[in-house]
Amino acid sequence: MPAPFVCALRVRYHECDAQGIVFNANWFTYFDVTLTEWFREVFGSYGALAEAGSDVVLAETTGRFRGSARFDDELAISVSIERLGTTSMVAVFAARRGEETLVEGRTVYVFVDPATMAKQAIPDWVRERLAPYVLG
Amino acid sequence: MPAPFVCALRVRYHECDAQGIVFNANWFTYFDVTLTEWFREVFGSYGALAEAGSDVVLAETTGRFRGSARFDDELAISVSIERLGTTSMVAVFAARRGEETLVEGRTVYVFVDPATMAKQAIPDWVRERLAPYVLG
Amino acid sequence: MPAPFVCALRVRYHECDAQGIVFNANWFTYFDVTLTEWFREVFGSYGALAEAGSDVVLAETTGRFRGSARFDDELAISVSIERLGTTSMVAVFAARRGEETLVEGRTVYVFVDPATMAKQAIPDWVRERLAPYVLG
Amino acid sequence: MPAPFVCALRVRYHECDAQGIVFNANWFTYFDVTLTEWFREVFGSYGALAEAGSDVVLAETTGRFRGSARFDDELAISVSIERLGTTSMVAVFAARRGEETLVEGRTVYVFVDPATMAKQAIPDWVRERLAPYVLG
Repeated sequence: MPAPFVCALRVRYHECDAQGIVFNANWFTYFDVTLTEWFREVFGSYGALAEAGSDVVLAETTGRFRGSARFDDELAISVSIERLGTTSMVAVFAARRGEETLVEGRTVYVFVDPATMAKQAIPDWVRERLAPYVLG
Repeated sequence: MPAPFVCALRVRYHECDAQGIVFNANWFTYFDVTLTEWFREVFGSYGALAEAGSDVVLAETTGRFRGSARFDDELAISVSIERLGTTSMVAVFAARRGEETLVEGRTVYVFVDPATMAKQAIPDWVRERLAPYVLG
Repeated sequence: MPAPFVCALRVRYHECDAQGIVFNANWFTYFDVTLTEWFREVFGSYGALAEAGSDVVLAETTGRFRGSARFDDELAISVSIERLGTTSMVAVFAARRGEETLVEGRTVYVFVDPATMAKQAIPDWVRERLAPYVLG
Repeated sequence: MPAPFVCALRVRYHECDAQGIVFNANWFTYFDVTLTEWFREVFGSYGALAEAGSDVVLAETTGRFRGSARFDDELAISVSIERLGTTSMVAVFAARRGEETLVEGRTVYVFVDPATMAKQAIPDWVRERLAPYVLG
């Protein structure tokens, strides 16, 4: 299980707009789906992380649009960790169709206690499981 | 406040699909928004109804597509009550652009106690407030 | 390839509403995704059908809600043909989680010439490929 | 017509996720709706700009999440221009509920010829109409 984790997705019809291309906001939805599948591999499921006392909330996210995707396109969305801080994680995403990178993302997640939604230091066991995805 | 209640909506860009027309499922979202605005007029807000001990869940919904709408079209969505039963209500919707009826909807809502989600008889005060919207 | 065709889907986080369950309109999106995957099996792809001179548009659709689904639930959505008419097809859908049927759908599709969007008689070759999915 | 332009929006039920708050990607949809309403004030309509030979495509967008919004919340989304370049425009958005800023956005739009989608220098008449929205 080397970095990055890669999630395969196919563009759904309603995710395209009147220009026939994936609507900009939907790329952030794709990144969210990728996070879910990544956490499934890392923690068993997204829900399992919360049950174990940790959750993540978005503090900031950026998308850079270099190309567009159309209905039924097959995409591979990769995610790696740029920085694993004390209470936050910076994840970087790249959505590709074949060799072409269409959209790049960068999201700052803050770890919180799901019971209180208060910021928490990333627990050691979480840090250990995420370590293989930290870049370079 | 005569029947029907009418909700004005403008088609948003991302609600259109690659054919340039409102994606079929989004018409049901428009009906949901219409319900919210209707309940605002009837009960103060959708949330106020739930706080007073009643909520509605969808049992069945139908859409009949006679025309299509495009980005930035102004729509008027009307809602009336076809039948106000003991525990359920049948609402009928019509989405128009000018004189043209584009989509008709018919939804069966069941009243529930929001605390338990168990079916409930429609409370008298709810029935009285909805009465002006009953057809015929 | 017996009837019905079955499409496996997993509920995405953003498809759930504030009640934590799949928002009603999204079930129609799931049926649309199921149509896409079904037509991939039958025609090679949804786009291939259009390129060959046929497309379908929705005339009417109904959903009957018997249960709800939550984030990360695995669903199996089946589709069969209730009636294959001269210019239209009635497809029936059932969304299941394990043995439990959550939502049933019934959609009337009208066949059109994609160049003109005018109604067309279902071409023989299309009818032959769809025949295995017609219910007993 | 002073800077910034402000668009009033109310949070729709289906725009909230299972946590009961607006799903992150939907804030970018709100910014898109704000752009449409802003261009209505500036150019008559979004479509009018394209008909006159100019369109915008997103090159990059960032959202910074400082708070969350719930169903039925009334939001005011402001937009101003941080930089009006030769071929691109940087717009900044702020989504507020009352005095509280919930989400900030920053989007780089590139001007294109809608016929060819090739980058274009911002036409003088477009620049003049946008000038009142350029920040300090």
